[in-house]
Amino acid sequence: MLLRRRTIDVSTRGRGAHEITPAVRELARGIRGGGMCHLFVRHTSASLMICENADPQVLRDLEKFLARLAPDGDPLFRHDAEGADDMPAHVRSVLTHTSLSLPLGAGELLLGTWQGVYLYEHRLAPHRRQVIATLWSVDEKGEGGSG
Amino acid sequence: MLLRRRTIDVSTRGRGAHEITPAVRELARGIRGGGMCHLFVRHTSASLMICENADPQVLRDLEKFLARLAPDGDPLFRHDAEGADDMPAHVRSVLTHTSLSLPLGAGELLLGTWQGVYLYEHRLAPHRRQVIATLWSVDEKGEGGSG
Amino acid sequence: MLLRRRTIDVSTRGRGAHEITPAVRELARGIRGGGMCHLFVRHTSASLMICENADPQVLRDLEKFLARLAPDGDPLFRHDAEGADDMPAHVRSVLTHTSLSLPLGAGELLLGTWQGVYLYEHRLAPHRRQVIATLWSVDEKGEGGSG
Repeated sequence: MLLRRRTIDVSTRGRGAHEITPAVRELARGIRGGGMCHLFVRHTSASLMICENADPQVLRDLEKFLARLAPDGDPLFRHDAEGADDMPAHVRSVLTHTSLSLPLGAGELLLGTWQGVYLYEHRLAPHRRQVIATLWSVDEKGEGGSG
Repeated sequence: MLLRRRTIDVSTRGRGAHEITPAVRELARGIRGGGMCHLFVRHTSASLMICENADPQVLRDLEKFLARLAPDGDPLFRHDAEGADDMPAHVRSVLTHTSLSLPLGAGELLLGTWQGVYLYEHRLAPHRRQVIATLWSVDEKGEGGSG
Repeated sequence: MLLRRRTIDVSTRGRGAHEITPAVRELARGIRGGGMCHLFVRHTSASLMICENADPQVLRDLEKFLARLAPDGDPLFRHDAEGADDMPAHVRSVLTHTSLSLPLGAGELLLGTWQGVYLYEHRLAPHRRQVIATLWSVDEKGEGGSG
């Protein structure tokens, strides 16, 4: 069994979805057999998600949706130590994902055609974010492969 | 270590939750030792979730909740290439789950009594959906078993 | 490869987030090499999440947010077999997480500085909740360690 662990550093440009699919695909390269790729973001105001990767309007609409659901400066919130976008960022993180697991086969992520992997920066200002990637595989035998 | 990978094909009848617990249980059968079962849906307008499986009204109420949260034809959304239910389907997918991981022991999913595994079709029309299932196990020794 | 499986029993004091980070850290102690820690809650009206662990106001604000999003006694809901908080608890569970996966290295959870692991009780009354923890590791070699 092979375990590969790397850190993906993402310098965000502020709030919004930043695609990390190419960086993750690169990590998967050369891994034989079947296995998994696990991604974990080490923050509570940024998160991970899988989303449609063809029409950039999807990401803009998603951002509008989240901004309506948990608006910056919402009077409901008291926690604003770092600004009006502080608590909404935590809410968005909880509602999306701190970790993702993706099936891996023969060095490839087994994503669907329209699936992209994104780090979502929920704070307005640019941040440096860390994603811990853990990839592992075993040689499939006996039980057979995909399908 | 054993790794078993299969694809579960789900023909949905349109929007709503489709239980896949029996298909997943079937895949787990005969796997000895402790391990995990990972499910991954290869789409961005269908998702996975674990939900109460006793009273069908729970699924109907959940559907009403999601329809209120991200209504079809919401004027907030511009992405409607495939219809008024297109962008809401992406939003629902992001808010629920693209993948699920379930503990596996002695050929059984270690689900709670009232937990069912569902594929949630978020589009109005029936679709064919693919779920990649990855099950793996090792023989537990020394460290002891469950509990 | 090592697999360690334990059950974490949590007696909740009613609705709210109950930190389980220390219990999980304890399970990770002594595990060598790199691996993963998987947590699974066996209920559909309690869930798991990673959230900011420094300012307790964050958890109070999150609770207010969820209570606004899926209010107890919402006339939208018909499923109220166990009370006005029954269906909202299921909704909250679906929108947060039934399972979490955390990277593990050299006996430590690789959490970010401000990340805590929480079991979220969504019912008003105290409950006994079960979390199945599965930790596994392999000795990292050849491929190198973190980073």
